[in-house]
Amino acid sequence: MTNMVILFTGAELLVNQLLFPAQDDQKSNPNVFVVGSTLQRLLNGAEDVGLFKEFQDGTMRGFTYANRESFKDFNGDGEGFLSDAECQYIIKHGLDTLRAKNEQHVPGYPKLKLYPGKSVVRRLQSKGVLIQYFPLHNKEDLKRLSFSWYKKFKLSFQPLDDIRHYFGEGLALYFGFLEYFTFALVPMALIGIPYYLFDWEDYDKYVLFAVFNLVWSTVFLEVWKRCSATLAYGWGTLSRKKAFEEPRAGFHGALGFNPVTGREEPVYPSSKRQLRIYLVSVPFVLLCLYLSFYVMMVYFDMEFWAINTYHENPNIATSILLFVPSIIYAVVIEIMNLLYRCAAEFLTDWGEPEILLFNFVNCFASLFYIAFVMQNMVLLRQSLATLLITSQILNQVMEAFLPYWLQRRRNKKVHKRMRRLMGDKELPLLGQVQLETEMNTYLGTFDDYLEQFLLFGYVSLFSCVYPLAAVLVVLNNITEVYSDAFKMCHVFKRPFSEPAANIGVWQLAFETMSIIAVVTNCALIGLSPQVKAYFPESDTQLILIVVAIEHVLLAFKFILAFVIPDVPKHIQVKLAKLDFDSLEALKKRVSTHLHMLWKYSVLNKTKHILKP
Amino acid sequence: MTNMVILFTGAELLVNQLLFPAQDDQKSNPNVFVVGSTLQRLLNGAEDVGLFKEFQDGTMRGFTYANRESFKDFNGDGEGFLSDAECQYIIKHGLDTLRAKNEQHVPGYPKLKLYPGKSVVRRLQSKGVLIQYFPLHNKEDLKRLSFSWYKKFKLSFQPLDDIRHYFGEGLALYFGFLEYFTFALVPMALIGIPYYLFDWEDYDKYVLFAVFNLVWSTVFLEVWKRCSATLAYGWGTLSRKKAFEEPRAGFHGALGFNPVTGREEPVYPSSKRQLRIYLVSVPFVLLCLYLSFYVMMVYFDMEFWAINTYHENPNIATSILLFVPSIIYAVVIEIMNLLYRCAAEFLTDWGEPEILLFNFVNCFASLFYIAFVMQNMVLLRQSLATLLITSQILNQVMEAFLPYWLQRRRNKKVHKRMRRLMGDKELPLLGQVQLETEMNTYLGTFDDYLEQFLLFGYVSLFSCVYPLAAVLVVLNNITEVYSDAFKMCHVFKRPFSEPAANIGVWQLAFETMSIIAVVTNCALIGLSPQVKAYFPESDTQLILIVVAIEHVLLAFKFILAFVIPDVPKHIQVKLAKLDFDSLEALKKRVSTHLHMLWKYSVLNKTKHILKP
Repeated sequence: MTNMVILFTGAELLVNQLLFPAQDDQKSNPNVFVVGSTLQRLLNGAEDVGLFKEFQDGTMRGFTYANRESFKDFNGDGEGFLSDAECQYIIKHGLDTLRAKNEQHVPGYPKLKLYPGKSVVRRLQSKGVLIQYFPLHNKEDLKRLSFSWYKKFKLSFQPLDDIRHYFGEGLALYFGFLEYFTFALVPMALIGIPYYLFDWEDYDKYVLFAVFNLVWSTVFLEVWKRCSATLAYGWGTLSRKKAFEEPRAGFHGALGFNPVTGREEPVYPSSKRQLRIYLVSVPFVLLCLYLSFYVMMVYFDMEFWAINTYHENPNIATSILLFVPSIIYAVVIEIMNLLYRCAAEFLTDWGEPEILLFNFVNCFASLFYIAFVMQNMVLLRQSLATLLITSQILNQVMEAFLPYWLQRRRNKKVHKRMRRLMGDKELPLLGQVQLETEMNTYLGTFDDYLEQFLLFGYVSLFSCVYPLAAVLVVLNNITEVYSDAFKMCHVFKRPFSEPAANIGVWQLAFETMSIIAVVTNCALIGLSPQVKAYFPESDTQLILIVVAIEHVLLAFKFILAFVIPDVPKHIQVKLAKLDFDSLEALKKRVSTHLHMLWKYSVLNKTKHILKP
Repeated sequence: MTNMVILFTGAELLVNQLLFPAQDDQKSNPNVFVVGSTLQRLLNGAEDVGLFKEFQDGTMRGFTYANRESFKDFNGDGEGFLSDAECQYIIKHGLDTLRAKNEQHVPGYPKLKLYPGKSVVRRLQSKGVLIQYFPLHNKEDLKRLSFSWYKKFKLSFQPLDDIRHYFGEGLALYFGFLEYFTFALVPMALIGIPYYLFDWEDYDKYVLFAVFNLVWSTVFLEVWKRCSATLAYGWGTLSRKKAFEEPRAGFHGALGFNPVTGREEPVYPSSKRQLRIYLVSVPFVLLCLYLSFYVMMVYFDMEFWAINTYHENPNIATSILLFVPSIIYAVVIEIMNLLYRCAAEFLTDWGEPEILLFNFVNCFASLFYIAFVMQNMVLLRQSLATLLITSQILNQVMEAFLPYWLQRRRNKKVHKRMRRLMGDKELPLLGQVQLETEMNTYLGTFDDYLEQFLLFGYVSLFSCVYPLAAVLVVLNNITEVYSDAFKMCHVFKRPFSEPAANIGVWQLAFETMSIIAVVTNCALIGLSPQVKAYFPESDTQLILIVVAIEHVLLAFKFILAFVIPDVPKHIQVKLAKLDFDSLEALKKRVSTHLHMLWKYSVLNKTKHILKP
């Protein structure tokens, strides 16, 4: 079946068909194509997708082939100028934007029609002709990367530039954030240890710790914005305008003109989306929240039963029983989060804000209830500790060890099959393709960020009643770096690289959490027996003072966020300079017809696999 | 004395010396020069200062002389293409950026040296050689404008485009905002009238009014942002990048390179400014605030004395006496605001945020004190009404009628002198120049915005206890439009036009006020006897509920501000398109040296007066 070749000939791709030895059944013997590209085509592609690279003068500029000699790292014919992830992005973009010109059949599939303007890859994928495509690992680079990343056991920063080079900016920013968050937690952990060891929480210092939390969570996020901008500028993604990018490339929908770029691309029906949100998402979210509250109430019943049992007959067995309800509840929470995630993806094809909301409510509702309705600080501490530790253990298992174990089993099976088919012949590429085809697909950074978001919540919302929380999170995140790194390199298929200028919606999510943290910490301070002791006769006065302090802190937080620039000065200057030069260039162009035609040329270097 | 000619010859200006008949004393007989410019030079200047004009395709583009035919309103030789205010801005820019090339003396003034790179105009001004320069009114256009603006007494919108054409974008945006604010107040005023007439404030509806205030103040500001963006886009100032503009043109300071544009311009010593703020402004502001609080306490003493007098002997005289302290206090507040303004300008050369802060505290401190410390709603209502009415009357008098009266007296004197000198000869330009030279200078929109800001405060913070406030502000603003329009056209010198893309810091100031309004209104609701009646035994519960509602409202406010885009969709698309085309243009330019040299060419059309 050579019918897939039409996909590429028009696009000047380098395509090789991998020939597999005959296997037992026909179904597991797909046609596999490896897609590559010449360096010249990749460089032109870099211009087409609008990559920013470092210019001679140290600023980042949109790359053009004509100006290539003026870019800093461009030597000779440009070998090594583009990162691995960039090459991959260019090829992916090229494949995704391949659209049929005329209505025609796919040769060999009389029932499979291509419609003008529709994405060919998407069409082949949805019809099951193209089973999957993904970038192959680069064994050499991967070895070097994994060695410097997680194989040497010494205290050092992660090789973020190498990660970005191999996996792209999106993942590199996630690992940068993970590292930054972990380091930022260290002071809090260091303060937390003596608090926990010497039972300081029984004294006034409990209030001090809450105040520290407040300041910490604000400064933490403001400084991250600057770090993120510095990283993204150096990687060329900060200057690249998001708005010019195509919507999710393989998207199916009517073709229209992008009003900004003037390019033809699919348009998303916005009113339809609105309707779906209201008719499907809202009742669904409400139902799930109700279920979550119901489970919480069941948990409280169990908790009270356990406490009663312990009080009736205090011994070792019943004191262990005290922890059982929390542990069960923690496991149920994790399962519910997982179920909700699957259900949400099935119902609304990408309901990220709803998932976030549900996870937040699901994880923290019981803590809020214990803290502010029951006002039981002992139970709060116990519940927080159990939730945190259980969810950390579960996460590490679910996220890395389980997939790794499954992957190893699968590897062995593939190896066995390969050996049976080919004896001891060395077929390195064939073997690699076989192995990676069977690997699971990495679903993006959403789950990883979500986990950090929830940890941030545990630390910033309630840690003043359980100062060891920060220590636990630091320990978790140190192993998290290793397990995430390992999982990226060896458990999942190599993911498509995604350019990213910041952590996106997560910045907002973390900031919202830190605002909620101000409110929570102020309330916890107001509820603390030490503070209450200052106002023995009048609750009213205490509440008014706490509310006043909270308002001052919130105002201070906003002023701080306003005063600290999001982008460091020297990068602001460079960005403004780019804008200025661009406008000057636009002025200088004596051309009345400013709408440019966009050429879709498909360019390729790394390898993609197609199964017809 | 023709020594001033050196100012212009190098800059290809059209300069005419106006010859005045000999007068009584030499001092009042200055040399007067009228500066004009050719159309060609103006068009080149429009390109140099980076004006944006409407392109053929309906978007706004940076004007270039080479592309002039592609702009929408460019007909023939371009007569009428630039607005009056734009021409004036171009000439002003040219004059201000004239800098001496070498160290040399001003001919005729052996002691007056020009230093390389320093602004010539600024130097001549500071040495008293150049007494003043300003744009002359255009009698014809002014007549037309004032007729359509305030001379026809029918209900209509202001001719904002004409105002912008004549006075520039800064002033036009102020009048746009004034009109928008007034219209936005109408619903509140309409609701307020029955509240006041039927004494609804004694019932639950008092709470309803506070809730209405909350929603109103949020929506009001969000919608204004969109209106403002629409206006500014149409006027070409939204696309024009602020960062590229030179700092205040005539500025004195060491010359340095602007890191963005690469142009040579004066750099402001930032550390020096920081130091000045801490050493001078902070103690000064604190001292003034202390004074303001002291005056407030004196006012309360007076108030209690008046109330006691009334209670001891209730008759008409003592009931009038009840209002006297508030009126005196209102007058004192206005005087203190004025004094602070002068002092601040003298001490720190432009302390706008401090002036804002001081005015806010000065005007509202007593109301906050009455509302939340004394919790005396009757006194609050009376005090609010007196402050509002007194300050409105004072403002109208101080701002328009007093200057007008002074101006008329001055006009008569000038006319008399002119007649004495020249008999009945008709010298229209000479006469106009004489008249306008004597007029006061308009100090910018700051005071006008400040007045609106304080009115907004009165309305949004406390109007639920005095529902007539909105009615008073609407009435005030209707006369304000007329008096401000009149004052711009006939009382002050024509101001230099200032391009503006939005109302700048005032947006932030109004938003801050509306956040404070949420807090105040919630607190007022909590203090209302009707709400208190629901919680007869427990103040604590009431406070907690009010605080919870307040937090929900604040969260709702932020979500609303986040959800409503600041710039309407169709303008966002146009702006993104400009960015996109600019970057494309920059990419296409095969030039390794991107820093462009900036030519300062001085271009002129309207008239400027110089007195050497």
